[in-house]
Formats: sequence, structure tokens, C-alpha cells
Amino acid sequence: MTEQLHDTAVRGFASDNYSGVHPEVLAAIATANGGHQVAYGEDVYTDRLQEVFAQHFGEGVEVFPVFNGTGANVTGLQSMLPRWGAVISATTAHINSDEGGAPERVGGIKLLTVPTPDGKLTPELIDREAWGWGDEHRAQPLVVSITQTTELGTAYTADEIRTIADHAHERGMKLHMDGARASNAAASLDLPLRAFTRDAGVDVLSFGGTKNGALGAEAIVVLNPEASEGLKFLRKLNMQLASKMRFVSAQLITLLEGDLWLESAGHANAMARRLRDALDAGIAAGELPGLGFTQQTQSNGVFATLPAGVADRLRERGFRFYDWDAAKGEVRWMCSFDTSEADIDAFVAGIREELARA
Amino acid sequence: MTEQLHDTAVRGFASDNYSGVHPEVLAAIATANGGHQVAYGEDVYTDRLQEVFAQHFGEGVEVFPVFNGTGANVTGLQSMLPRWGAVISATTAHINSDEGGAPERVGGIKLLTVPTPDGKLTPELIDREAWGWGDEHRAQPLVVSITQTTELGTAYTADEIRTIADHAHERGMKLHMDGARASNAAASLDLPLRAFTRDAGVDVLSFGGTKNGALGAEAIVVLNPEASEGLKFLRKLNMQLASKMRFVSAQLITLLEGDLWLESAGHANAMARRLRDALDAGIAAGELPGLGFTQQTQSNGVFATLPAGVADRLRERGFRFYDWDAAKGEVRWMCSFDTSEADIDAFVAGIREELARA
Amino acid sequence: MTEQLHDTAVRGFASDNYSGVHPEVLAAIATANGGHQVAYGEDVYTDRLQEVFAQHFGEGVEVFPVFNGTGANVTGLQSMLPRWGAVISATTAHINSDEGGAPERVGGIKLLTVPTPDGKLTPELIDREAWGWGDEHRAQPLVVSITQTTELGTAYTADEIRTIADHAHERGMKLHMDGARASNAAASLDLPLRAFTRDAGVDVLSFGGTKNGALGAEAIVVLNPEASEGLKFLRKLNMQLASKMRFVSAQLITLLEGDLWLESAGHANAMARRLRDALDAGIAAGELPGLGFTQQTQSNGVFATLPAGVADRLRERGFRFYDWDAAKGEVRWMCSFDTSEADIDAFVAGIREELARA
Amino acid sequence: MTEQLHDTAVRGFASDNYSGVHPEVLAAIATANGGHQVAYGEDVYTDRLQEVFAQHFGEGVEVFPVFNGTGANVTGLQSMLPRWGAVISATTAHINSDEGGAPERVGGIKLLTVPTPDGKLTPELIDREAWGWGDEHRAQPLVVSITQTTELGTAYTADEIRTIADHAHERGMKLHMDGARASNAAASLDLPLRAFTRDAGVDVLSFGGTKNGALGAEAIVVLNPEASEGLKFLRKLNMQLASKMRFVSAQLITLLEGDLWLESAGHANAMARRLRDALDAGIAAGELPGLGFTQQTQSNGVFATLPAGVADRLRERGFRFYDWDAAKGEVRWMCSFDTSEADIDAFVAGIREELARA
Repeated sequence: MTEQLHDTAVRGFASDNYSGVHPEVLAAIATANGGHQVAYGEDVYTDRLQEVFAQHFGEGVEVFPVFNGTGANVTGLQSMLPRWGAVISATTAHINSDEGGAPERVGGIKLLTVPTPDGKLTPELIDREAWGWGDEHRAQPLVVSITQTTELGTAYTADEIRTIADHAHERGMKLHMDGARASNAAASLDLPLRAFTRDAGVDVLSFGGTKNGALGAEAIVVLNPEASEGLKFLRKLNMQLASKMRFVSAQLITLLEGDLWLESAGHANAMARRLRDALDAGIAAGELPGLGFTQQTQSNGVFATLPAGVADRLRERGFRFYDWDAAKGEVRWMCSFDTSEADIDAFVAGIREELARA
Repeated sequence: MTEQLHDTAVRGFASDNYSGVHPEVLAAIATANGGHQVAYGEDVYTDRLQEVFAQHFGEGVEVFPVFNGTGANVTGLQSMLPRWGAVISATTAHINSDEGGAPERVGGIKLLTVPTPDGKLTPELIDREAWGWGDEHRAQPLVVSITQTTELGTAYTADEIRTIADHAHERGMKLHMDGARASNAAASLDLPLRAFTRDAGVDVLSFGGTKNGALGAEAIVVLNPEASEGLKFLRKLNMQLASKMRFVSAQLITLLEGDLWLESAGHANAMARRLRDALDAGIAAGELPGLGFTQQTQSNGVFATLPAGVADRLRERGFRFYDWDAAKGEVRWMCSFDTSEADIDAFVAGIREELARA
Repeated sequence: MTEQLHDTAVRGFASDNYSGVHPEVLAAIATANGGHQVAYGEDVYTDRLQEVFAQHFGEGVEVFPVFNGTGANVTGLQSMLPRWGAVISATTAHINSDEGGAPERVGGIKLLTVPTPDGKLTPELIDREAWGWGDEHRAQPLVVSITQTTELGTAYTADEIRTIADHAHERGMKLHMDGARASNAAASLDLPLRAFTRDAGVDVLSFGGTKNGALGAEAIVVLNPEASEGLKFLRKLNMQLASKMRFVSAQLITLLEGDLWLESAGHANAMARRLRDALDAGIAAGELPGLGFTQQTQSNGVFATLPAGVADRLRERGFRFYDWDAAKGEVRWMCSFDTSEADIDAFVAGIREELARA
Repeated sequence: MTEQLHDTAVRGFASDNYSGVHPEVLAAIATANGGHQVAYGEDVYTDRLQEVFAQHFGEGVEVFPVFNGTGANVTGLQSMLPRWGAVISATTAHINSDEGGAPERVGGIKLLTVPTPDGKLTPELIDREAWGWGDEHRAQPLVVSITQTTELGTAYTADEIRTIADHAHERGMKLHMDGARASNAAASLDLPLRAFTRDAGVDVLSFGGTKNGALGAEAIVVLNPEASEGLKFLRKLNMQLASKMRFVSAQLITLLEGDLWLESAGHANAMARRLRDALDAGIAAGELPGLGFTQQTQSNGVFATLPAGVADRLRERGFRFYDWDAAKGEVRWMCSFDTSEADIDAFVAGIREELARA
């Protein structure tokens, strides 16, 4: 393909999935190329990947690279559950809101969902659905699934996760984490990945690379082997077994063998913080009438409310972002590994101008 | 990832999936990189892909990039069937033998399988399972699925496919083609892709890029839009919707916008032909005692029988390939886009030496 | 089985499923016995059943007898939905709360649930989940399911149902009714079955016989044939096709060919009314301290709150009923076709005595 | 229902499902009626049923009444298998040929089928599909399912079953028996039920009542509790949990607490034997030109071949039976508990007359 069809200078705030591939990740794919390697995961890069994850999560973890986050979540959850199992999650969880019903239809899993103010479960919220064990009329709540960082840009502390894990385990439930943005959480909390996952009691983790500069690379990470069964078979059954897996593994190795994962996620977080700080300062100075925030900015997303019409006018100026809850005037601004300070500053300037016109 | 962990000079005959990425495909991924593009398929490369496929298959086809062949097959078949539908296929079909039960468990599809001598269905073979419409005690046979080229290295002629399509359509059944190696078929038949697919009556095609030099790129191609429904939703449901789809589409564009698809597949076929011809000549000369062939060599795979012990001794010498039916001494030798003439010649020499020792 | 193992004089308020078979239904089973009849629904009784339902619902309806209510609901809903469809229901709906996840796991259906104060959906409540059509990331809301009478003992008026039907149909959604207690609704509303189902815009109805004196007989009733497809096959697939179907059909004929359905349901309603009225009178007289009601009594169930300890003491006296929400002290008292006035009066007396002790 | 719509004097040879309910079974339903009993299986009759089965199968067996044979098979098999499991069966097995794809779609189970001459598996036949453990590309063969008596009217001996059980167990597979006609097998083998099930190594049994005089009563019988998990939940999930279960259990109690099961099945077998013997005698005497038999008559079904046109002429005379393989002129004649000697004698006379005309 000789022709580049798009303008590589255009970036927006719509989604961290809109960004491309980090150059180091692309280089790693080239490095893994050439010659023949056994397909379906029995290659040297997938072997090496186990070691790389062990450096972060400790000995004994098992890593299963897959294609995408939905595949990681559904397959990981199935491995934790009998056919009659149900999963307690926040209503806003990706598994409930953005996976097209895959957990139910492909996974055969009933979701027991709980509304939350900030995307975060608590023991009290979990208990709204954590009951009815032994009653076959009720799908059995056997897993709690949390998202870190959440779909609302917030982050659980390690202590909060430990509390949830203890609460779940005491009731015979396992703890799953959708870590599509686990790297952003580590950067936000300034903690090793292990501290708020394995050491906090998470049993199975969906670890995301794609939103953090990979081309397409996610992994199911079994932190507690006693909590998961049959992933080798389930990954194949669920059509998530890559034939040329060496290239998926190489992406994850590149992110995790050094600091690339942390630098990229930390940068995305910092850009969201820069955006939030600039706007907070403007609000404090009384210069941004009608602007507000609905969530704390604890990772790479900013959730704001704008006066009527302002969002559309910003989009007309070329800024790209989504409404989150149009009825409330709520919008979502996502930063990614390639968001620049200039991007933020131009956006802040645009917001200032449009709010001044409002 | 700075370290290359494998020897790029090592190639074998185990599988076309063992090969890596063609350099032009890798370059295309880099070309598609940079800046932001809408995720989940609304990018300019996926748009362009529709045009590229239209050049090969004619106007009105719809292309849905997916991650892998199992995903393409199961999702495509679901789009052709009601919940009570069944699929008639050869017993050796990949959907029956190598997809871990995904068609049944994820697709909810019963397979009605027929043994064949060469991996190819015929109207007579189809009729062994094509009956019972309207009887709810029998899963309803509503799709015939053929593989081109087959799992046994044979190719249907365009006429054979047309005969099957007519036979199926007359009975109210649709025709699906698993074209993981459709490019090899085009090269083998010396026909445009369209001639033995859309023009021959195929309704939905799984088109494979991965075995032909892509990193990981397959597509469901709807050749007859009346025969398929809901692929947009089914692809998501089945966890086959890539977020950074531009990179999947770029791979397929690169293969298909010029002749790369045909050159690569033709080369792989030619290498298999070179292997077969050299060995046939040896047999004719009485020099290869105990060597035989179980299938015609019509694409990039050679199916042979060897005297006891020879396969293992060849593997001990470093040649890589799989037993196909160990009980019969049958082995499979696959060539790929990167197989060299020297690879073949060295392998022939090795076979000669080991047969001489047998 | 010569020995009767239970005391036929014991009745309670736990569930209308705890009652047995109405003598006329038992007699009908005997009438349908003897000789041979074609199995799996091609018998004369199942034929006759179509006519009986047509008398109630009008020409053109199709009736599919099944084993139980979960089977009727899941199979009926599947017939209304593509694989990517979702169902909007109240959180308290039986399909969500009491079917062990069968809609999700067997049906592959995502439920989009809405909390309600009284088990009844409204257009406003429906709209909380009625959005996102065309977006493959969201399971597509294509059916609204209401329960009549509801799991909380309340009844929709015909006008309320018509309003919901219009609302759903205008948005391209179909309307399903779980009518496990549709007979109680007819008695409560003093309307023909047709008035609040087919004439009010319901497309597919689960019609219940079991809770109303049948041994085990439910039916999927297609009121709008354009809204349902493939039930013949889905019923078999879902393991709900009775071989000796004549006996299921005979039960439903007996209920519906005369007034037995209405008399039995009306009696159960009247007993609940008698219970409620007696207790309301006591409350008005200031004699029942701590007793309250959480729902209107519009069918055969009474939902009450009791002071701490009273429910258990009533059960110790031999009265049988379930806690509904133990945390709130809420209990459910169900009446059935065989509940007697004496049963009610004795229960009222017991409640009076225990409240006096409280 | 006051009107009897059918002629109770009409019987045929189409299916044992065409017969009605044995009078003792009907009486038992009446005996179990009256008063209230806990629903969903916590009633005294279902308790008693456990004891009745223990008398036949020994201590420690667990019995789960369900609605129909498909429900018993699919639910029982699921309880024996992880999500990635497959079942080896004969091609003619009911689970493969007559359940509309329910094992695949509802159960998520891949069937690995083997053609047999007589409906019976052997270790050699099993081994055609018993391979590939540990390879995730192949659905894992973890259960062997046999039908006793088979769909072709043949019976396994206890020794044959023991040999299969040992073969399966040695390979890590479990043994399931579809015993829809297990009673006919006991009568045919002149053995207690236990001798060719539990004592022969069967792990889970589908025990059939319906074809043997019940209205509708089947049971999953766990003979080896270590081989089955979660049936309580799976039965509900699979929509096979009867609310008024006391009436299902009462049917099975009646069959099994005395000799009714054996007398009824033995009678059906004897009628098939009478038919076969009379026709064999005619053949030996050279009086029945063109009549042949395709299977041994070891239970209540006779499989015969007739000259062209004879089957239809017999049906025109009012005899009811099905073609089994129309292309071969093969027909199936089934006897049931209510088949009379006069029925057989009239049928033999009819066959004689039509063959004389042929």
C-alpha cells in the first residue's frame, strides 16, 4: 500500500483507540518478523512474554495473549465461572455497556449490574446483588468485575481493591479486573502493576495494550491459577487464538519489558491533567461560565459538562470528542500516548473562546 | 523490544501460518500509522478496502475485516442462518476439525458432515445430509460450506463450484466458502477471484490474508447481500471487531490493490509443485522406495506417505512438518510465500537420503 | 403409586405453584387418554387448542404449547429477536429475577432492566434503555417485555398496555407479555383476554395455565404473526416440545373452552382481596399496629410489611409464605384457585394475634 | 374438557410416544393431587423418588426429574463436561439425529459421531474419534454417549457396556447412557437396571418414563456423583425445572416402586417379538416374498425392508408406521405398553396379504 490516505497531523480527544501504534511497538513487530515460528502461541516471543509478565506480577502468573478487550473479558470471565455463574459489575462497566451483549451471548454469563456515581464498586454496592447462592432460580453471583481505571476516568486505590477482594473472597466470589487501562492506573496511583492487582487480591486481569500504543494486543493474565480453568481451550473456542501470535506477544513485550507502558500511560494521564488544570484555573478565575466537571480526573479522560451548543461548536472547529450523556450536556475528552501539549493548549483556547461566546 | 529471539533463517514445511509478514504488508502498517483515525472500522483505510474488494469481486460486495479465520467462518455462517440452521460440510473442513467446536458453541450451529476422499463436496455427497427440511427434529440444512483450496491441498474448479451452488440454491440452501487459501486457488486455477466465487454462485466468502503474508487479517466478504444479515452486529458480538481496524484493512489493501496476493500465493503453490515434481521424478526413476502421495498437489500443500520411521528421521535432521494421519504414515508438507527454491531442494535431498536408508 | 404421602388439607400462601391440579383439568387428561395419537403436537387436541385460543384472541393467532413459563418466555422472545437483540424489562421481571439466567445463556438475549416502583414499565421508564439502535457496541433493544399481572401483584390497564405498545412500535420494537398470570389480569380488569393483549398491541404472549390449576401447561401465543419467526424449530431446539402433547393441550382446552380459567383466577383474586380488605379494615380500626402494604392488591398476591419477628412467628404457627424483601420486613402472600375463605379468615386471625403480641 | 375428540380404539406402530398414559400412572397423578406442596422439587414425592431409584440403582444415586428426553440428555451431558468438551456417539444417536441441534445450540456441545451398523458403539468405533486430548484446536472428547436400547432396536449386553466404560474411563472419558428405553433393555436382557448401568460403569443415565406409559416424565440419574456437577442449576438454566414437580415424580414412582416399568416394557418387547417371530416363520415357509429384516429385534422395535409400494399400501389399509430409510425400503414398527396381541396378529395378516399382492 503505497498511498497514505490520512493526515497524520490530525489528533483529537474522541478515544485513545483513535491513536495509532507507538514507533517502538512497530519496530518490535519488525524484529519478530522473518523466518518461521510455531503458530498459535508456541513461539519464542510468547514464551518470553511469560517472563516479562512475571517481572511485573511475580512468579506463577499465566499470560494468554488475545485480540481485543472484549475477547479478554469474556474469555477470562468464562474461565472463572461455571455455566450457571453471574458477574456483578457497575452498570457503566464496558462488559455491560459496550460489548454488544457478548458476555451474555458468547459467554453465557448473566451480568448483575449496580449503578454507581463514579464507575467504582464498593462492598455496599456489591451487596445489592451479592445474594441468593444456592438458589437455582437466581444466576449465581460468583465473580465481581471491576474496571481499572474506570470507564469514567476514575481510579480505585490499592486499598479499595483489597477491600473489594476480601469482601468478594469471603463470600466465595472471585475478583476480575478489566484492565484495558491498567497502565494508566499504575501511572495515576504511582504504584507497580502488581500492587493494585495481584497483591490486592485480583484473581484474573484483562491487561490492555491497544489503548496504550499497541496495534492490537491484549492479554488475559491469570494472577491466581486456582481461580481460572481451561483458558487454553476457551481462548480457541472464543475465536481469540492468533495464528501468528508472535506479533501480538512482541507488542506486549515491547510495552512491558522496559518503561514504555508507563511512560505512554503516564503521558496520556498528564495531558488529561494539563487539560483539567487549565480549565480548573479558568473556572476559578470566573472565566469559563457554564463549564463543570462530573468526575475526578484520575487517568487519561476528562468528563465535563458544557452549556447547550458549545460541544457542537467545538466540533465544528475541528475538535473531535464524543457526547457522554447528551441529555445532561456531558462530554468525554480522552487523551492518548500521542497527545501533545500543543494539542491540549489549542483545545483549552478553543473551549475558552466558545464559552465566551455562549 | 530490541532483542530478536529467533533465527530468521529457519523455515520449515509445518504450516503457512509459521511464516511471518511480507515486507510490503509491514510497510503498509507503517503507512497507515500516525495521527488519529476513527476506531472500529470507520476509518479511511477500511473505506478504501471496500473499493479494493469491489475491483476483484464487482460492485455491491460488502467486506468485514476480522481477526482470524475461525472468526470469519463462524460469524459469516451465523449471518446466513437462522438459529435453527445447520451447515453441510466435508468431515475434513476446518470448521469441523480445527476450530475447537467454535461453530457449535459460539455459533450455535450444527454441522452435518460428510466424509470425502479429497476434501471436496459434490452434489451427491451433499445429498447425504441435504434432507429433512421442515422437520423440527432435524437441525435444518440451510448452508453448504466448502473450503477452497481444501484442507487436503486440492482445488475445486469453477465449474465444480457452480454445480454445487446450483444444487444448493435449488434446494433453498446458501453456499459459503472458507477461502483461507482463496488466493492459492486463484493462482492454481489461473482465474480471477471472482470467477470461482461470486460468478460461480458463492454467497459469502471467508477471505484469508494471514496464511498469505499478512500479520493477521481476514475478511468476511458478502458476495450476495440477500444471503447475509446483521454482520455489523454479529462481528461485534463475536468479539471480532478490531478497534484499530485501519491496520487490519491496510494489510488487506496491500495484498489486493496490486498483485501481491497472487504473487505470494502463486509462489507458495510453485514451491509445492517443485517439491512434488522432484519427488515424482524420483519415484518414476525408482529411486524413492516407499514414497507415495495421497492427494493431488493443486495448491501449496503436498500430502505424502512415508515408510515407518522416515518422517521422524527427517524431523531429527531439522525439517519441520506435521503428521497428517500417523496411522497411515501420511504427512503434510506446506509451502508459504517465503519458501525458497533452496528450501525445497534441500528438503528433496533430505528425503532422498532418508528413503535410501529406509 | 398407592400411597398418598401428603396431607391434602394443608394449604398455604407461599405460591400459586404450590397448589395442585383442578379436578376438571385432571378429568380432561383422562379424557384425552387411550388409543394412539400422533406425537409432538400433530394430535387432535392440539388442533382443537388452536380453535379454543382463536375464540379468545381472534382469528390468525398461533399457539405453541410448552412445558413451563421460562420455556415460553425464552422461546417466545427468541422468535421475536435477531441474535443481536436485547429486551427491555422491569428489574423485577421474572425473566430477569427468577429464570436462573436462561434468557441470557439459552436465549443469548441481553436484558436491559429498569427499576420500577410497582413492577410496571411506562414509556418514560422504557426510554431509559430504548436507545442506541444501529450502534453495534450496544445490544439492540428490539423487544419490550411486560408482565401481566406483575410479579408485585399489580395489573396494567388495557390503556397502559396500549400506550406502551404504541411507544414500542413507533421505535421499531415489539411488545412481549409474560402472561403467567394473564387470567388473573382478565379477572382483575374484568376484560376479555383479548382486550389487554392482542387489541392493546401485544405481539407475543406467554400464556400461563400452571399457576391457575393446570398440572403443567403453558403456551406461546403469537398474536401478531409478523412479529415472530421459527417457533416450530425454536420450541424443539429449546427442549420444550412435548412428545405426548395431547395432554398438555387438553389441560389448556379445559381451562379455556369454558369459564374455568376465569373462575379459578377470579377466585384466587377474590381471596387476596378478602385478605387485604380484612387487614385494611383492621388497620383503619387501629388494631393492626405495624402492618402496612407495599403494593396495590390487583390480583392474587398481597405484599405486606410486618414488624420484626412477626413473619417468623406466623410461620411457626404453620402459615406458609415467603419473605419478599427481608431487609424491609416485606412478605408476599399468594392465593390460588383452591384457597378457601376459611383459609383467609384463619390467616387474618393469626395475623391479628401475632401483631397484638408484637 | 368434556368431549373426547379421538377414537381410543385406534393404535398403530408408528412410535411408542403415540400411546397414552398407563391407568396406574394416571391414578398416581390423582393421588399426588390436593393440598399444597412445595414447588420446584422440594415436595414429598420427589423426596420419595430418591428412595425408589436407590432401590434400583443403589445408595448414593441422585435423581433429577425433567420434562423430556432431550432435556435429560443435554442437561446431563452438560453436567459431565467443561465448556470445551465434546461427546462421542453413534451417528444414529438421538442426540445427533433427533434433537434439532439442541446439544450443540443449547448445550454448546460438539458431537463427534461414528457410523455403526447396528446403533452400537464399540471400543474400536469410539477410537475413531477418541484422540486429540490437550490440543485446543479439537473439541475435547470427554464423554462417550450410548443409547440403550438403541435407536435401531438393538441392546447392548452388560458386558459390552462394561467394556466400553472401561475403555472410556481409561482414557479419561466418562460414560453417558441415553436410557429413554432403559426399561426395555432391562426386560430384554433379563437384568436389573443396575446391572447394565451403574454396575457396568455408566456415570450418568437419562432414564425414560414417557415411552413406557408415563404422561411425561424423564429423569437424569447421576450414578457416579464424581462425574457430574451443577445439575441443580443446569436443570433450571435449561428450562427443565417443573414447578409442580410432584406430578412428574409421582409418575416415575409409580413405574418404579413396583414392577410396572418392567411389565410394560416387557410387554412392548414381547409384542415386537411376536411380530418378528410370526414374520420369520412366514419367511422360513417361503410365504413372504421380499420381506427382510435389517436389525435384530432386541426390544420393542422391528426394522424391516419391504418391496416397493407395500409400505404405502399397508398405510392405506390403516396401519400406522414410519419409513426409516425410504431409499432402501426400510420401515420401523414400534410396539408399546398398550399394543395387543390382536394388533400384532391383524398387522401380520395385513403384511401377508400385501406381500402376496406384491
